[in-house]
Amino acid sequence: MGEFELIRRYFLPLAGQQKSRSLILGPGDDCAIQRIPAGRDLVFSMDTLVEGVHFPENYRPDHLGWRALAVAASDLAAMGADPECFTLALTIPVADEQWLSGFAEGLRRASDAFGLALAGGDTTSGPLTLTLQVHGTVEEGAAIRRTGAQPGDLVAVSGTLGDAGAALDYLSELNPSPDVAGLLDRYHRPCPRLDLGRAARSFASAAIDVSDGLLADLGHILDASGVGARLDSTRVPVSACLFRLKGDAAVTYALRSGDDYELCLTFPEESWRRAPEALRCQLSVIGRIESEPGLYLDGIDCSSGATPSGFDHFRRKS
Amino acid sequence: MGEFELIRRYFLPLAGQQKSRSLILGPGDDCAIQRIPAGRDLVFSMDTLVEGVHFPENYRPDHLGWRALAVAASDLAAMGADPECFTLALTIPVADEQWLSGFAEGLRRASDAFGLALAGGDTTSGPLTLTLQVHGTVEEGAAIRRTGAQPGDLVAVSGTLGDAGAALDYLSELNPSPDVAGLLDRYHRPCPRLDLGRAARSFASAAIDVSDGLLADLGHILDASGVGARLDSTRVPVSACLFRLKGDAAVTYALRSGDDYELCLTFPEESWRRAPEALRCQLSVIGRIESEPGLYLDGIDCSSGATPSGFDHFRRKS
Repeated sequence: MGEFELIRRYFLPLAGQQKSRSLILGPGDDCAIQRIPAGRDLVFSMDTLVEGVHFPENYRPDHLGWRALAVAASDLAAMGADPECFTLALTIPVADEQWLSGFAEGLRRASDAFGLALAGGDTTSGPLTLTLQVHGTVEEGAAIRRTGAQPGDLVAVSGTLGDAGAALDYLSELNPSPDVAGLLDRYHRPCPRLDLGRAARSFASAAIDVSDGLLADLGHILDASGVGARLDSTRVPVSACLFRLKGDAAVTYALRSGDDYELCLTFPEESWRRAPEALRCQLSVIGRIESEPGLYLDGIDCSSGATPSGFDHFRRKS
Repeated sequence: MGEFELIRRYFLPLAGQQKSRSLILGPGDDCAIQRIPAGRDLVFSMDTLVEGVHFPENYRPDHLGWRALAVAASDLAAMGADPECFTLALTIPVADEQWLSGFAEGLRRASDAFGLALAGGDTTSGPLTLTLQVHGTVEEGAAIRRTGAQPGDLVAVSGTLGDAGAALDYLSELNPSPDVAGLLDRYHRPCPRLDLGRAARSFASAAIDVSDGLLADLGHILDASGVGARLDSTRVPVSACLFRLKGDAAVTYALRSGDDYELCLTFPEESWRRAPEALRCQLSVIGRIESEPGLYLDGIDCSSGATPSGFDHFRRKS
């Protein structure tokens, strides 16, 4: 199967331009064309996944298709952007039809779920590697950046953290318990918080998606904003599945492991108070921004990457 | 050296936003932000280069940096777009400082030469693979597409063809003759025809860049436009270097080999007549569009990929 036939069969069905109001020319020419409405900014982000580095060898292709687009779309969520379209650079060792069909199916489901139309890309032969770029739009100047956190702001996170990171301990399990199955589902089918990011756009002062671990990612906000933070570990949200499986270590997973693709946001206190209940109930307030640099957890400085006492049994496996 | 240090040292210097009028947030946040001026369209294209497939193993990193951006920018040239910015997904086996420094230097020279600012990207570890996405802008509706060729239009190509493809025969030469050095320079340092594409925007009915070979790439225009073409092989432009090295076979290289990144354009005859002399003198008219499908060279049908008699000694090596 040549490159053109492969694209026609598996990927052109994802190019439905009705998903994107701004995509006016999709795959098939030298370039795609997007017409950004007046008064809106284009926001875009690129992510690469390499076999054996970002996902296991022989990983299920439908899971990979979903994950690849979800991970990329999570960056749009962190900016509070409306999703529009994406490009895909797919490098595969051989054009295996069964693999391609599964991959395209996972990608299609994610494309439908997130409202991202395929705009173009490149298909090449080589070691399995995917690079996706996602495009969104936002009202001019309204994107949530990492630089806006101010002393006194509240620090909040969405959902629960640590499930996807803990799932790495169970990837090879053949008959997972319901709790393990819950974690595995978080790893295989991350859901970028697109609606939440958009809802937070008028209220949050800074945002990032949790892909490297809460402490690391909040650290990026602190660095970019020139501030510090104090967190209370007892307020970090963990799922019941994770707590039942890992006990007290659950919090370590929640602090250190990535792959959950939740959002970490900061809010000026008065913005938080006037934010809709529907937004606030999706978030847990876990601490507060301080003018003094440093990231303190229960009073212990962990900004240098040091692990606070009690959390040192964790070894990151991904 | 960690990912962040690597990016800071080698790639942030390429993010000079003064190169792009529309890039308002470069690397360092979850997404980059571009503000497209009212009345203009965004055009974008993604290209992947895999070691051992698209460039030789142990290829000089400064050549690779230049080539990667040039190849991607050539798609902007084919649409007649003004270059703005690019993203880079760089997958490397190890963070070798000497390699990275050479790569970044080649990329920086290309970035300066083409006016493309680095907007963001991703750096990962794995088998050497690069994916670049280039962004340009063009007046609304003015991008040159593949679909606009009409019966009676002239077919023209820029510069000379075949040099870069023939260079593949000499890549390992240690003391190349001046003629061979001329070909090698075309391969290592392709120059996307950005100025030509922009100048042709108001006159050309269709365009494509020659990356797979003239016959294959013109074939894409014919398919997209639902037309055919007749070409005169004696009018296909070849360089003196190529002719001296390959004799009559030079034309085969010009017809079949890619990597030159010249443009192939079609022009309605009256547009051609009113096009500026400065544009026309960069182009060679090599044939004419016909309503009947098929691609005829000297009267022989080669639309099926068949090689016309006299040209069958060519074996593509890339």
